[in-house]
Amino acid sequence: MNDLLTSYITSKIAVTDAELDIILGFFKPIKLRKNELVLANGEISQRSFFITRGCLRIFFINESGQEATRYFAFENQFATALVSFITAEESDEFIQAVEESEIYAINHKDFYYLLGVIPQWEKFYRIYLELAYVTNTRRLMSFLMQDALEKYQQLLKENPMIVRRLSNRLVASYLNISQETLSRLKSKL
Amino acid sequence: MNDLLTSYITSKIAVTDAELDIILGFFKPIKLRKNELVLANGEISQRSFFITRGCLRIFFINESGQEATRYFAFENQFATALVSFITAEESDEFIQAVEESEIYAINHKDFYYLLGVIPQWEKFYRIYLELAYVTNTRRLMSFLMQDALEKYQQLLKENPMIVRRLSNRLVASYLNISQETLSRLKSKL
Repeated sequence: MNDLLTSYITSKIAVTDAELDIILGFFKPIKLRKNELVLANGEISQRSFFITRGCLRIFFINESGQEATRYFAFENQFATALVSFITAEESDEFIQAVEESEIYAINHKDFYYLLGVIPQWEKFYRIYLELAYVTNTRRLMSFLMQDALEKYQQLLKENPMIVRRLSNRLVASYLNISQETLSRLKSKL
Repeated sequence: MNDLLTSYITSKIAVTDAELDIILGFFKPIKLRKNELVLANGEISQRSFFITRGCLRIFFINESGQEATRYFAFENQFATALVSFITAEESDEFIQAVEESEIYAINHKDFYYLLGVIPQWEKFYRIYLELAYVTNTRRLMSFLMQDALEKYQQLLKENPMIVRRLSNRLVASYLNISQETLSRLKSKL
C-alpha cells in the first residue's frame, strides 16, 4: 500500500524493520479531490505530507492579491508549509491538491516523537531540511536575480513536469507572472 | 578562549565532555580585518563560521549589479553560504567581515564527519537548518510581499541591531533599496 513511502525512507536512512514499522505506523492515508485544501493560511501547519499520486501546491497571496506558488510536490515527494510546521506559528501559506491525489500525512507531534526514539530519523529530517533549504533559497535567488524569460527557461530545464502537467494559470503563479506574459514567453521560444 | 562557542553548543545539545572536546577540536580561530572576504562567489563554501566578535555579511550581486545582503551574523551566531555548503556547488554569495571580527571556522568535511560519530551533532545541525530555513523563507516572503517601508519597520522591530550598528549603505543593501530611499524612510518615521 505504501511501497513508495517505504522505498523513499529506506533510500535515505538505514532502519531496522521494527523501526520502519514504527515510522510507517504514524502515516495516515488521505484521498483528496482536485482543488481540495489541506491547509489554509492562518492555520498552524501540523502535518507533513508524502504524495503517492497527484500533486500538492503550496502558495500564498502576494502583495497584488494574486496567488503566488512557492512549490509543487509530485509523487514521491514530501511537502508542508514548513516554516509554520517548525515554528508552530500561523501559516502564510495554503496547501492544495491541484489534481485528484493520494497522500500520507504524519502529525508534527509524531514526527518530533520519532526524532527522540529513532536516531536515524534525525538524519532523515536533516536531509529533508537540507533539500528544502536549497530549493527555497534557489527560488529566492531566482526571484531576485532573474527576469521572466530566464525564470521560464530555468523551469523548462530543471522542472519540465510542471509545464507539461499543469495549467498555464498554475505555471504563471509559480513564475509570479501573468498568464499573458507566460503566453508571450511560450510563443517566443 | 571559545567559551561562547562552548555555551552555544551545549545550549542546543547534550554532549559529554569527551564529545565536546572532539567537536571543539575541529574549530579553528580566525581574525579578520574590516571588509576582509572569507568567501568569494564562484568558490565552493567549504567552511561554516561561528562569530565571537564582530559581524559577517552574506551578500550577492543582484540583477541591477548592486550588492544585495541576505544575512548579517553577529556574535554568538553561525553563518555560511549554506546552499553551496550543502551542495558543494559554486557559491553565488560572498561572505565578508563588515567589522574587525573574530570567528571560529569548521570545515565541511569535519562537520559531516561529526554527524557520523556524534549522534547529537545530527540534532545540532537539524536545529541549525530549521533556523536557517525559517530565516531565509521569511526573507523571501518579505521580498515578495512587503514594500520598502514595511520591510524597514519589520527590521526595526525584529533586528534593530542591524540599524544601530551598521552603515546606511549596508542597511540599504539588506532591504534591497537605495540609500536615498532609506534616508527618506528614516525621515518619515
